[in-house]
Amino acid sequence: MTTAPVTRKTTTSAPVPTQSRYQNSVAEYWNAEENPVNLELGKIDGLYHHHYGIGEADWSVLDETDPALRRERVTAELHRLEHAQAELLASHLGALTPADRVFDAGCGRGGGSIVANLRYGCHADGVTISAKQADFANETARRREVGDKVRYHHRNMLDTGFETGAYAASWNNESTMYVELELLFAEHARLLRRGGRYVTITGCYNNTYGQASREVSLINAHYICDIHPRSEYFRAMAANRLVPVHVEDLTEATIPYWELRKQADHLVTGIEDAFLTAYKNGSFQYLLIVADRV
Amino acid sequence: MTTAPVTRKTTTSAPVPTQSRYQNSVAEYWNAEENPVNLELGKIDGLYHHHYGIGEADWSVLDETDPALRRERVTAELHRLEHAQAELLASHLGALTPADRVFDAGCGRGGGSIVANLRYGCHADGVTISAKQADFANETARRREVGDKVRYHHRNMLDTGFETGAYAASWNNESTMYVELELLFAEHARLLRRGGRYVTITGCYNNTYGQASREVSLINAHYICDIHPRSEYFRAMAANRLVPVHVEDLTEATIPYWELRKQADHLVTGIEDAFLTAYKNGSFQYLLIVADRV
Amino acid sequence: MTTAPVTRKTTTSAPVPTQSRYQNSVAEYWNAEENPVNLELGKIDGLYHHHYGIGEADWSVLDETDPALRRERVTAELHRLEHAQAELLASHLGALTPADRVFDAGCGRGGGSIVANLRYGCHADGVTISAKQADFANETARRREVGDKVRYHHRNMLDTGFETGAYAASWNNESTMYVELELLFAEHARLLRRGGRYVTITGCYNNTYGQASREVSLINAHYICDIHPRSEYFRAMAANRLVPVHVEDLTEATIPYWELRKQADHLVTGIEDAFLTAYKNGSFQYLLIVADRV
Amino acid sequence: MTTAPVTRKTTTSAPVPTQSRYQNSVAEYWNAEENPVNLELGKIDGLYHHHYGIGEADWSVLDETDPALRRERVTAELHRLEHAQAELLASHLGALTPADRVFDAGCGRGGGSIVANLRYGCHADGVTISAKQADFANETARRREVGDKVRYHHRNMLDTGFETGAYAASWNNESTMYVELELLFAEHARLLRRGGRYVTITGCYNNTYGQASREVSLINAHYICDIHPRSEYFRAMAANRLVPVHVEDLTEATIPYWELRKQADHLVTGIEDAFLTAYKNGSFQYLLIVADRV
Amino acid sequence: MTTAPVTRKTTTSAPVPTQSRYQNSVAEYWNAEENPVNLELGKIDGLYHHHYGIGEADWSVLDETDPALRRERVTAELHRLEHAQAELLASHLGALTPADRVFDAGCGRGGGSIVANLRYGCHADGVTISAKQADFANETARRREVGDKVRYHHRNMLDTGFETGAYAASWNNESTMYVELELLFAEHARLLRRGGRYVTITGCYNNTYGQASREVSLINAHYICDIHPRSEYFRAMAANRLVPVHVEDLTEATIPYWELRKQADHLVTGIEDAFLTAYKNGSFQYLLIVADRV
Amino acid sequence: MTTAPVTRKTTTSAPVPTQSRYQNSVAEYWNAEENPVNLELGKIDGLYHHHYGIGEADWSVLDETDPALRRERVTAELHRLEHAQAELLASHLGALTPADRVFDAGCGRGGGSIVANLRYGCHADGVTISAKQADFANETARRREVGDKVRYHHRNMLDTGFETGAYAASWNNESTMYVELELLFAEHARLLRRGGRYVTITGCYNNTYGQASREVSLINAHYICDIHPRSEYFRAMAANRLVPVHVEDLTEATIPYWELRKQADHLVTGIEDAFLTAYKNGSFQYLLIVADRV
Repeated sequence: MTTAPVTRKTTTSAPVPTQSRYQNSVAEYWNAEENPVNLELGKIDGLYHHHYGIGEADWSVLDETDPALRRERVTAELHRLEHAQAELLASHLGALTPADRVFDAGCGRGGGSIVANLRYGCHADGVTISAKQADFANETARRREVGDKVRYHHRNMLDTGFETGAYAASWNNESTMYVELELLFAEHARLLRRGGRYVTITGCYNNTYGQASREVSLINAHYICDIHPRSEYFRAMAANRLVPVHVEDLTEATIPYWELRKQADHLVTGIEDAFLTAYKNGSFQYLLIVADRV
Repeated sequence: MTTAPVTRKTTTSAPVPTQSRYQNSVAEYWNAEENPVNLELGKIDGLYHHHYGIGEADWSVLDETDPALRRERVTAELHRLEHAQAELLASHLGALTPADRVFDAGCGRGGGSIVANLRYGCHADGVTISAKQADFANETARRREVGDKVRYHHRNMLDTGFETGAYAASWNNESTMYVELELLFAEHARLLRRGGRYVTITGCYNNTYGQASREVSLINAHYICDIHPRSEYFRAMAANRLVPVHVEDLTEATIPYWELRKQADHLVTGIEDAFLTAYKNGSFQYLLIVADRV
Repeated sequence: MTTAPVTRKTTTSAPVPTQSRYQNSVAEYWNAEENPVNLELGKIDGLYHHHYGIGEADWSVLDETDPALRRERVTAELHRLEHAQAELLASHLGALTPADRVFDAGCGRGGGSIVANLRYGCHADGVTISAKQADFANETARRREVGDKVRYHHRNMLDTGFETGAYAASWNNESTMYVELELLFAEHARLLRRGGRYVTITGCYNNTYGQASREVSLINAHYICDIHPRSEYFRAMAANRLVPVHVEDLTEATIPYWELRKQADHLVTGIEDAFLTAYKNGSFQYLLIVADRV
Repeated sequence: MTTAPVTRKTTTSAPVPTQSRYQNSVAEYWNAEENPVNLELGKIDGLYHHHYGIGEADWSVLDETDPALRRERVTAELHRLEHAQAELLASHLGALTPADRVFDAGCGRGGGSIVANLRYGCHADGVTISAKQADFANETARRREVGDKVRYHHRNMLDTGFETGAYAASWNNESTMYVELELLFAEHARLLRRGGRYVTITGCYNNTYGQASREVSLINAHYICDIHPRSEYFRAMAANRLVPVHVEDLTEATIPYWELRKQADHLVTGIEDAFLTAYKNGSFQYLLIVADRV
Repeated sequence: MTTAPVTRKTTTSAPVPTQSRYQNSVAEYWNAEENPVNLELGKIDGLYHHHYGIGEADWSVLDETDPALRRERVTAELHRLEHAQAELLASHLGALTPADRVFDAGCGRGGGSIVANLRYGCHADGVTISAKQADFANETARRREVGDKVRYHHRNMLDTGFETGAYAASWNNESTMYVELELLFAEHARLLRRGGRYVTITGCYNNTYGQASREVSLINAHYICDIHPRSEYFRAMAANRLVPVHVEDLTEATIPYWELRKQADHLVTGIEDAFLTAYKNGSFQYLLIVADRV
Repeated sequence: MTTAPVTRKTTTSAPVPTQSRYQNSVAEYWNAEENPVNLELGKIDGLYHHHYGIGEADWSVLDETDPALRRERVTAELHRLEHAQAELLASHLGALTPADRVFDAGCGRGGGSIVANLRYGCHADGVTISAKQADFANETARRREVGDKVRYHHRNMLDTGFETGAYAASWNNESTMYVELELLFAEHARLLRRGGRYVTITGCYNNTYGQASREVSLINAHYICDIHPRSEYFRAMAANRLVPVHVEDLTEATIPYWELRKQADHLVTGIEDAFLTAYKNGSFQYLLIVADRV
């Protein structure tokens, strides 16, 4: 059993030779980012996510009249929905064992890798272009005493330097919109062993609607990202030996999260209306894709 | 509103200029086919399907001690599961109106088109390479008094001669394994309007497992078909502007149908064990793919 | 000599069967659009453009102290730069004769087709998804008494219905960002005769920089467009028998236009800073591509 | 002169990390296989083949009245035809010298490599997924005292670990139907030097006929293989810098072998009729392809 | 049975709208060409070919001492070899009946179509870019009284306007080097019915050797042609549903023709040495490819 | 800062394992080549180029009546034009620093690398298939005392063995016609860092005209090269992440060079008329392409 993959770089604190100035701007954004919606939710149980929630909301939290308590209950409810999303993703990673290794591409502050480790006991390598996020996540893993199995690396997910075929599963949780899918899926296909599992949850623009709507462009401007059309996921997977086995439109399931968040004055970032409008006018979708490396 | 598409051939009784000797052998098979599992089930409500069922079975039908009644109850239960499959497919055709037109590729004895018409009131054009099936299906439609909206044609689904862009939805219910997917999806993409919906339920071999297992080959030999790998569906869709929006592995859901059918002495065809073994050893999958024409 | 191409639709006032809801939103935008920067500039000489200018500006217009006169002189100067761009494009259309026919894809209020007709005496067919623009442009052509040679059509540039091989030249002047390039270039390649010339001036995002920058996304949101990476132009041309013969980076040449426009209070639309920042940080380029249909 | 290629694994007895469960089932089949038609024929001269014969048969062997002698003579005649096939393949390997190295992909019990070594004196590396076959073949080479030049490896032919560009020639003798051709030809193209020669003799289904016939599927089921259409060979070669220079339809030439084998009660495996029917109805072909690595 | 295909142009005397200036230069060449090696050989039996011969030569013709008789015998012998080539090509056209229609792409003075008609009684449509060749060939057919079945058209072989799927067989006899193979094979694939046969005999440069040798370029300069690499044939066929079934290197077989022609002072054109050197140094090949339209 | 890339071969004097016999013939040509037009021009200032010139000529050099002086002045003027071409190429290499490394593919006698080093102070690696050229060029660099930064290697430009991503810029100055562009651009893309710059000046045949004209073939025969169509450059760049940013037709600019050279009796090689005719009849173009590695 391999417990640590052979990699060409051994320190995670070294700066990433980022491929582009665009990626530098993304790294700057995330190095500086301290949105309460990410930090406050993570504080609840130490699982810091950077994604959105799914499932029906408990709207009663809005009825709470005490302002502080209302904030607390809304925060908790949003975190519950967010955690449900992370669990949904993790539930599709296949039958992993503690000896298996997983790759978390665009790990942010690290919540997803912890969720996978808690569920399967597996090794996890998270990668983020933000040095600050990698440090934060490693510190979290250390405090949880899983630092021997869960590690975060300050690297480029398109060019990880990790060992070919060493991973049983890998995923992107809302991090595909920062990179070219052709390069991304080539790297996942290289890292995964034959029969390995790839999962992504992502916002994509709906090419049934047409090109990107104004709302999609506003979201892109907000996060400095570049949301792909749905078609591009399937085209790039087909070109990289990743074969879908489960695809689910989570658009309806994520709307409650956004409706609730919109009413959380202490957490809103201003992009909530763009998401809600885009989901409702059909130009944007929240999609789960589960694929096998063949 | 177009009620009848412009087509280059107007009689359905004329022989199809089939493209290949292989297709002739398939047509011969279906012209001769009179399996009780297809005919007996269809007699129940006049909906003749040529596919398999999904959902949990009512196993109590096997407890029936009267042989004739047992046969009747098993037949009815299998038909119920089969009908559930047809309804699942139809439920994914999108928001159709009575003015819309749908294309049923490989319609067999016609059940699927009737199901769609009952649900949406839409026009339907079914196509089969078997003249006998087309006649049978048209007769059924006539008796149901939907012959003005539901028509079956003795044609090649790869080259229908139907009008470009005239269809709001189309599907293959277990009929993709008789044709090249590249040609098939090109024809669907041509017939569907922008934003139209394509649905297929199909058995595919699982290229996570590898190449076709012995059981898959036995199924091919039984039906004179050529089951495709799962990957080929997504590759050929990507090449023909069909973008998946929902993919569901129905393997677990179809096993009860096969377990029950295996115990129905009056209906078995001898291929039941190959299906059950293939589903259980992971070499074969029963898959639903829903895609948009973009 | 063919003076009018055979087309499948003969009235230009009929609504376009637009392919997508996205295109509907674009049509709505342009049907409603009445930006002074487009209307005021066009009034000067009846050449209504919807694009940007190139070349060094006469900055002395800003020194004019009389407010009305200053506005007038700034407007005239911007129009001069804008017209220089249109002339640059037209100068690359090849050696056209009065018998030749050209296709103006995304013609807006029609200025480009007039410019081509004035220069070469050729026939021109302009296409716009906005009925209002088509009407406006046809009225302009009528008043200039070139209505017999220059016609504007309310159609989809991806699916014009015009005659195959009937055009000696065609172009997109800042209108490629509303459509898929693969479909667009397929239509140009179909319409152009062998040896015909295609020209585009366009903003593209610079994939040397990486993915789309925040500024590029803000421009997308402003115009409801979807700016393509530079690479996509060359990929899609290569796939459609359009071979570049001249490529020129006009970024430096267009900056004076934007600097001047930014100071024109009566004309600014609010997007000026995004353009200037994007051009200067290297994430965006203003590009001329001239290609031959082979 | 390199006499032994650098490889990443040095022992041939280690288990192959097979890529798929399918390949495991194939290895199991061949580890267990002890068909007289393979073993009895090989005993004659120690050249163990796993393929079929070509050329006109000496039908007089059937006239032998002594049962034991008849068996012996039929066995010898089948071996003669089988050997003629191996010699035909070897004759197309190009002008090899004793210093050259050849790669035998899917070597079975090793006959083909010996034939090549006898003809050219060259080095040979055979690869089989069956450990038992590799051991058997190495033992044979040792007894023939060519163990220094002819070696058999228990490896996956899709991923040999052999040295890039080290081979002057390579082949598959009836072993392509167990693997994806795209992966197979990529490996051959990697191993062959520029100008190297690739040869295959294979059964393929004839896509002039259409999809796989029932007989082809029965052959697949018999051997747990997955016979490719003829078109796929040429498509995958074109994608991997293998350019055909000689293609020969051996269907007629192999029929005598099958007619004779069908009458050899001591050797028949039960699949003979499927082969004969498939060859005669035009759905199946026995094909020789000779190609250059460019 | 269709005896005449529907075509979009009905007169063959109209000038071809040639696609390129290059094709004009080729047409000029052939309109002016009056090489004795083509005309003198054709006079023997009225079968005018524009290709080379195959097979062993009767060298005794060179021993003839009477100069006139020697010329006559050499001419006859070269024609015999040339005719053998035409017969070899025709022998691979499949099992044609008098009701079938064949397409002769680049028919020159028409010999090949006559050969096919004599052998199978089939209809033939020859196409040449040279009006003079078309006229000459039609006059020949008229004199042979096969003008009702064999017709020559002054058209572009890349864009014949003939009916889709109307042809049972088609070929290029040394005429592929004047056109892009991608466009050529697309047209053949369009014209041939499913299962139809395509044959070409052609000189190609051998990409095993590398790029075009000096001799290949001299041949190109002599004929104003553009000899393709061997690889391009197989790539373009694979992209156009043409699947090889027989490929034969005729290089050795054509050398006697060239050796003899080189010694025929009354027939040499000056290019003989380039051919012989190119064939012998391995940079050039004379190739037969037989493929099925699938 | 890396001053020397890691390469797999350390001596430049070792013979290149050339990939093909064609390349051997090219190496032989250049090992033997001693054309005055290359040697005499280089002697002027020690910058030996193997390409053509651009810009208006000083025709007064032809008026010189003293024969020796006339030769000297013509030689100097041609060198001036030739040097202007090298400077134009070098001016497009991007903003290089002395720490950067550039790759000169097909460096000939080395002039281009020196020009780049003089302009930017950068490191340069030139590669030529001719050992004699490499030695000559290294000797030149040594004499100029830049041997520590400018090195020439006797290697195959398709397979340099240089370090991946180590180069800030690279180019081919009239050396692309000796190789397959697909392989060439793959190697450039591998060697260039993200954002690196590629430049080529090349003669290409104009596929607007059609296939290669007779004159283009004569040029091929003269140099044993294989001039590509213009389209192939853009297709192969698109497939290898090289995105054009500047394309310029230098045909008009190079004609003076050829007109002058044609009148230089001491320098003509006999190919001058073919160039002039080909440039003037539109079948040939002299093209500059500048592209970014993305």
